[in-house]
Amino acid sequence: MATSASPARGLPAIDADRLQRVLDGRWAQARQDARRLLRANPTPAVHEMTVDEYREQINEHAKMIAREGHPGRLYTKAAGGEEDTGGAVTSFEMLGLSDLSLLVKAGVHWGLCGGAIFHLGTERHHAEYLPKIISYELPGCFGMTETGHGSDVQSLRTTATYDPDRDEFVIHTPDEDARKDYIGNAALHGRVCTVFAQLVTQGQSHGVHAFVVPIRDDAGNAMPGVTIEDCGHKAGLNGVDNGRLTFDQVRVPRDALLNRFGDVDERGVYSSPIENETRRFFTMLGTLVTGRISVSGAAVSATKVALTIAVRYGETRTQFAPPGADQEITLLDYLVHQRKLLPALATTYALHFAQSELVGRLHDVFGAEAKDERAQRQLESLAAGIKAATTWHATSTIQTCREACGGAGYLSENRLPQLKADTDVFTTFEGDNTVLLQLVAKGLLTDYRDEFGNLDTLGTVKFVTDKVLSVVAERTAARSLLQSLVDAVPGRDEDSDVRDRGWQLELFQWRERHVLEGVAMRLKRGADAGRDLFTIFNEAQDHVLLAARVHIDRIVLEQFLLAIESCEDPQVAAVLERLCELHALSTLERDRAWFLEHGRFTARRSKAITAAVNDLCRELRPHARLFVDAFGIPDEAIGAPIALGAEDRRQQLRRAAGDGGTDKVDAQRG
Amino acid sequence: MATSASPARGLPAIDADRLQRVLDGRWAQARQDARRLLRANPTPAVHEMTVDEYREQINEHAKMIAREGHPGRLYTKAAGGEEDTGGAVTSFEMLGLSDLSLLVKAGVHWGLCGGAIFHLGTERHHAEYLPKIISYELPGCFGMTETGHGSDVQSLRTTATYDPDRDEFVIHTPDEDARKDYIGNAALHGRVCTVFAQLVTQGQSHGVHAFVVPIRDDAGNAMPGVTIEDCGHKAGLNGVDNGRLTFDQVRVPRDALLNRFGDVDERGVYSSPIENETRRFFTMLGTLVTGRISVSGAAVSATKVALTIAVRYGETRTQFAPPGADQEITLLDYLVHQRKLLPALATTYALHFAQSELVGRLHDVFGAEAKDERAQRQLESLAAGIKAATTWHATSTIQTCREACGGAGYLSENRLPQLKADTDVFTTFEGDNTVLLQLVAKGLLTDYRDEFGNLDTLGTVKFVTDKVLSVVAERTAARSLLQSLVDAVPGRDEDSDVRDRGWQLELFQWRERHVLEGVAMRLKRGADAGRDLFTIFNEAQDHVLLAARVHIDRIVLEQFLLAIESCEDPQVAAVLERLCELHALSTLERDRAWFLEHGRFTARRSKAITAAVNDLCRELRPHARLFVDAFGIPDEAIGAPIALGAEDRRQQLRRAAGDGGTDKVDAQRG
Repeated sequence: MATSASPARGLPAIDADRLQRVLDGRWAQARQDARRLLRANPTPAVHEMTVDEYREQINEHAKMIAREGHPGRLYTKAAGGEEDTGGAVTSFEMLGLSDLSLLVKAGVHWGLCGGAIFHLGTERHHAEYLPKIISYELPGCFGMTETGHGSDVQSLRTTATYDPDRDEFVIHTPDEDARKDYIGNAALHGRVCTVFAQLVTQGQSHGVHAFVVPIRDDAGNAMPGVTIEDCGHKAGLNGVDNGRLTFDQVRVPRDALLNRFGDVDERGVYSSPIENETRRFFTMLGTLVTGRISVSGAAVSATKVALTIAVRYGETRTQFAPPGADQEITLLDYLVHQRKLLPALATTYALHFAQSELVGRLHDVFGAEAKDERAQRQLESLAAGIKAATTWHATSTIQTCREACGGAGYLSENRLPQLKADTDVFTTFEGDNTVLLQLVAKGLLTDYRDEFGNLDTLGTVKFVTDKVLSVVAERTAARSLLQSLVDAVPGRDEDSDVRDRGWQLELFQWRERHVLEGVAMRLKRGADAGRDLFTIFNEAQDHVLLAARVHIDRIVLEQFLLAIESCEDPQVAAVLERLCELHALSTLERDRAWFLEHGRFTARRSKAITAAVNDLCRELRPHARLFVDAFGIPDEAIGAPIALGAEDRRQQLRRAAGDGGTDKVDAQRG
Repeated sequence: MATSASPARGLPAIDADRLQRVLDGRWAQARQDARRLLRANPTPAVHEMTVDEYREQINEHAKMIAREGHPGRLYTKAAGGEEDTGGAVTSFEMLGLSDLSLLVKAGVHWGLCGGAIFHLGTERHHAEYLPKIISYELPGCFGMTETGHGSDVQSLRTTATYDPDRDEFVIHTPDEDARKDYIGNAALHGRVCTVFAQLVTQGQSHGVHAFVVPIRDDAGNAMPGVTIEDCGHKAGLNGVDNGRLTFDQVRVPRDALLNRFGDVDERGVYSSPIENETRRFFTMLGTLVTGRISVSGAAVSATKVALTIAVRYGETRTQFAPPGADQEITLLDYLVHQRKLLPALATTYALHFAQSELVGRLHDVFGAEAKDERAQRQLESLAAGIKAATTWHATSTIQTCREACGGAGYLSENRLPQLKADTDVFTTFEGDNTVLLQLVAKGLLTDYRDEFGNLDTLGTVKFVTDKVLSVVAERTAARSLLQSLVDAVPGRDEDSDVRDRGWQLELFQWRERHVLEGVAMRLKRGADAGRDLFTIFNEAQDHVLLAARVHIDRIVLEQFLLAIESCEDPQVAAVLERLCELHALSTLERDRAWFLEHGRFTARRSKAITAAVNDLCRELRPHARLFVDAFGIPDEAIGAPIALGAEDRRQQLRRAAGDGGTDKVDAQRG
């Protein structure tokens, strides 16, 4: 591992191990276990396989995870698991450093299918299915999305109608719009599917419920009434066999219903511990938050790999000699190259800490004795917001890394094409990011008190509370640490150093309050005037999304600051502080128009922020390698020759060849 | 074709044909010919082929172009061609609507290899090679890029040393860093290569020159001393067989030198009509501008296809019903969905007109009797800037279109994955965009008077002139039309309507002048203080790139305005005016921080621009289909089922099914 190049510009020289320990955090052991697994199983050269070969390989690797990866950690001991949600989710995150098809296949099977059985089923389902899910003996699918309904899950159109004469449910797909679509593990390997369908009994619908439906027999043939199609080739993730499922009056026994939140007796009488249908639906959905958090973690991991490749290449590759010089400039010494990679690297650190906090909260909420509905809803909102942030960041950062590596970045052997293609769908699956941000905004605007709606956010307008700021004002021990930073800031902006963390944080907090108040007032004004609710919502939609985004921005910055505050190694803390400044200031720079429009930035201060970002790029450039090495990604996972010495070797050959013997006359070069 | 949905919001109802005629412009016939070819040759389902199959198919399609596509239009009649550069480049652009591998393979062979022989060679080369190039009898490669040098072509390290004893050149690759890399057509089909190498004779190097070097014999075997490797799988463009070429003392006759700009006699004496080595090099390079312009056109075409798919899908797909309603909202009725697609659509129109102007200038400059070196340099600069703008726009717009189509956009059958993967390299090949913007800035800063340097822009600082504004102030008949728009603007910003075209244009012009003056002063100040030239340049690099970008922004807006001014159909002009407003205002919105920082926007005005963009999105939304249909892309080229009725058909089935018979109770929905 690299040691920080020099103690120049006031930063202590530390080695990557020390920084890695801070990044590894609460589930360090799970990360180390995962690294061993990654070293033993190098990232496959996906482009050298056919889709069929790749799918088979991924299926074999899933079996390996069953043997070595402890997927049982996801479930409670009573259900045959190990009760370590945080460790399990962290392991998935680490898997994202390598083969994302494997991560998604595993996530569909253990996280979604197994998770639905675990969270929505009861003891009889746990006993019957979970051991075979844990061992991968019974490969599973998660049958939620339909061709016609992805984001609006509540409007799914598959039906499960109870037939009291035969004590069975009849699962049925009315038309193509209602077939299950994009279902991972369905095209080839899935044997069972948790099908989400409108439960109908005694002529009445009770909303969406999940049913365990066999889709293939032991020999791999489709069950009677089940039609399975292959979704075919995708942009990426082609190791996952996505398929389409159509059910033609398929009969399953009554106890196929995962009945924790709703049950039907043999006469067909429906009962539920949650009376309101919509509230019940969203309670069910909420238990499946693990999938979204896992995708978010995978996005962070893929981003780390891309940055590791681009930074290592940018540290080695040279191009253009300055006038009068023989030595060409190293790419990462160009300001604009630094600007492409270093702010993205800083934000990746911020998102790493935010993701770690999210996983911690998931672990704690799921592990709590007493269920706290508000904590659960806040977790869902946080997961939605962080997932949107990490996946969009992955898309843009991996794109930038590809471009920063030029033609070499376009070659499949250098991993970036696969990373880009595999992660591309992350912004729209496990919740479309735009819809997720609306969900976040809805939580803020209704103070999480609206129990009747989740992804359907068009109705938010009806529920906007007067107390939109309680979540912002909420105090915890951790947040009082941050408050002391803010309290130390001088009263006037112009008296603050732009690089003062307290000043930066206060701006994020102030913006969040201001935007949220503005949206709330705007929506209430429209509603008070009796205008059409959709029109009110739609005219403010960009404003609503902004409220969500700046809320998440504030949380992400706070998590970076809290990680620094709790860092016990003062030298590591000093290095991280500088990186956090770059994250905060590059975010403020991106959004400086808003601060100028709202009177918080003068023109002079706004320009000073751009200058400070440039300064920080220069200061942090010698440490770029340290920052990527501290991610602790094994070379076997990185895989890309340009990041593993190929470029370096070429330049040594070239120096040995005496630079080719051309005799360019310097005076002639412009 | 669609007719504009309604004459609502003050826009006349026109049909797509009328708009298409305006878009088709000067080379309408070439576009119509290309459409016929596209209809007869549907876009292939690339993902269903192996790389080997795809490469062979593309090779066969190249032969078809040789028969039907008139590639000879690129060259003069004297050289066996048809002397219609504009028509040829327009045909390439149209090919970009279909299979981009074919476009690149054809571009490498006819545009780059054939172009080098045509522009850098003399009659003997034309007579010997061009007929076989035109007919594709002799598939060609373009051997410029090396593993170690892509952007900095002047520093290539392959050597061509003259041996007077045998009257031959010896082509040699000193080491891996100097091998020819990413060479299209090299891995499989190329028979000949125009190799760029340092010409050495009588112990002295005369800089980079091009040589025609056979790389395979008639049987397809590598020639003695030539080692050919396969670059392997890439993110996209896998129908092109990119390879690596290493030359081990390969001997070619003296007349293999393309000797228009530099020759060696039998004794080894070097002569050239251009004495200065660097100037000679850039004169040679300048003749190859066609390739860059073709890539730019292909980027515009791919963007049009992606927008056509996303808009058609967004017009059909529905999701979420508002509170109290049965009917779900169509995606394109959501403000945020409009914001994703419509400003990008408006900018695509702007870039279409800018690209058309670029092709026109290329045609005129190449066709001119008397060579005008300044016009040539301005053409190169314009090509560099427009290419950077169109390719970055393609990358971001295709990404957005993919996300706007959700899971359906991730399926290969719906074209977007292929469009994204194929165009991704456009931002870094035929000139890395960052380097190209520096070239544009250099032209502006030195008033195109620095003859000694092109892509090597690190030395710009030395040549900055006091008259950086001559290009801005330059007057032509066309531009005086624009001036009348600007002259009509009131003196105070706050007195102008934000939707006034003259006011918008004046802002673009003012910004260009301001940024350019600022950069020039900054660089001169540093140089006058005797600071290190690289440091001066590097500290201002972001500023330098901004100067180039705002220059191109101004040109692109002007081309849109000029296209409207010269439009003979007043109703079409009225529709285009509205779209141009959206382009201008969304650009100003993106960059409003700069205008706020520089005192041109008040906070109120800045917010008014955002409001105006929202208003325009709503106004133009009913016409979205018209705007994409007017691109005139045959359904056979579009290929994507979601854009060709699949989604529509599903919704009809669903309506017929009575929406699945669920009985959601409205009061329970949030």
